[in-house]
Amino acid sequence: MEFSSKLLENAVNEMSQLPGIGKRTALRLVLHLLKQPEERTSFLSQALMNLRSGINFCASCHNISDTELCEICASPKRDESIVCVVEDIRDVMAIENTSQYIGLYHVLGGKISPMEGVGPQNLNIASLVNKVKKGTVKELIFALSSTMEGDTTNFYIYRQLEGLEVTTSTIARGISVGDELEYTDEVTLGRSILNRVPFESSIKAN
Amino acid sequence: MEFSSKLLENAVNEMSQLPGIGKRTALRLVLHLLKQPEERTSFLSQALMNLRSGINFCASCHNISDTELCEICASPKRDESIVCVVEDIRDVMAIENTSQYIGLYHVLGGKISPMEGVGPQNLNIASLVNKVKKGTVKELIFALSSTMEGDTTNFYIYRQLEGLEVTTSTIARGISVGDELEYTDEVTLGRSILNRVPFESSIKAN
Ligand SMILES: [Zn+2]
Ligand SMILES: [Zn+2]
Repeated sequence: MEFSSKLLENAVNEMSQLPGIGKRTALRLVLHLLKQPEERTSFLSQALMNLRSGINFCASCHNISDTELCEICASPKRDESIVCVVEDIRDVMAIENTSQYIGLYHVLGGKISPMEGVGPQNLNIASLVNKVKKGTVKELIFALSSTMEGDTTNFYIYRQLEGLEVTTSTIARGISVGDELEYTDEVTLGRSILNRVPFESSIKAN
Repeated sequence: MEFSSKLLENAVNEMSQLPGIGKRTALRLVLHLLKQPEERTSFLSQALMNLRSGINFCASCHNISDTELCEICASPKRDESIVCVVEDIRDVMAIENTSQYIGLYHVLGGKISPMEGVGPQNLNIASLVNKVKKGTVKELIFALSSTMEGDTTNFYIYRQLEGLEVTTSTIARGISVGDELEYTDEVTLGRSILNRVPFESSIKAN
C-alpha cells in the first residue's frame, strides 16, 4: 500500500497492529475518523491512553477494577467461600450477566499454553493457591473453556491444591465441547453454574 | 454489557463508535492493548491524533497530503491535461497501484446521495468545474463506482461542464456493475483506464 501522506500511513500502520484488523480495514476506520469531528478522535485516543496508563487489577481476584478491591470482592453480599476460576474479564462479565452466581472470582489472565509460551508462572495461579491456603475458600469452580489448554490449566491447579481442604468442581456444560463462555447464552451458562460437578468426576468421565 | 471499570467501559464505548466494530469486538481489541506494552497504545493514540489534527488536503486535487500540493499534482512527470475523478483516496491508491495512469486526480470526497444528505455542495465539485474552466484540462475520466449514486454524480458533473471544451470518459469496466474500484484486481483496473470510453456513449448504452 502506497500512501500519499506519512501521517495517514502511520495511523493505518498503528491501527492494523490490532488483532483481526488488516491494512484495508485500518484505512477504512482511519478515513472514517477523518470524516468525523476532531473530538471523536481525541475521545478515542484519550480513552485508550487513560485505560492503559490507569489500569488497575483487583488485589484479590485480578479482575480489571478502578479501585484496589473490585466491586465484587468488596461486596458483603457475595459468598467468599466459593471462588470461580476464569480466564479473563469477559468470562466474569458473562457469568455476572446470568445473575446466578453469588461467589467470588479468580481471574487467571490466560491459560497454560506451551505453544504460546504461557507457563503457570505467567498466570495468577500462585495467588489462587495462597488464597486457598488461608482456609476461607471451601469450593473452587473451574470455568475455563474446555479446550486442551483449559483442561491442562485446571489439572495443574488441581495438583497444586493436593492436601488442602477445598472442594473442586467444573461448571456443568450442556454446551458442546470447545465453546467459549462469552458466546454462550445466559440461560445455559446460568444453569451450568448451578449444576456444577465435582472436578474428580469430570476427570473420570474423560 | 456491565463493566467492572469505568476506564474500561469508556475505552470500549469509544472503540465501538468505529464502523463495523461492535461492543464485543471493541472489548477484544481493548483487552489486546492491555496485554501489550504501554507504548503500543501511545503510538496508536498519537498516530490518530497527529493525523486528525495535522490532516491536510491537496489544494488542487483534494487528496490527503502532508504538503500543500500532493506529490502527484506537484510532479512534472504527470500529464495535467487528463484528470481522473474519484470518490476518495482509496480509489487514487488503487489506480496508482496499476502504474497505468499518468494524469492527475480530482477527489470528490463522496458521491451525491440524497438518502445520506450528501448534495453537490458537500463535494469538491465546484473546484473541479473551475479547474476545467481554466482550460488546461482536455479530458475528464469519471472513475466513480457504477452505483446509482456514482451515476448521478457523474451526470451532475457532466451537466455542469456543458459548453466547456473538455472530453469526458468513463473507465471501461470489464468488471461487473456495482463493483468497488478498491476491490478490483490491478490488471483489470489498469486495462479499464486504458480502454476508457467517451461518457456520452456510456449514457446511450444504458
Ligand atoms: Zn476482585
Ligand atoms: Zn493533488
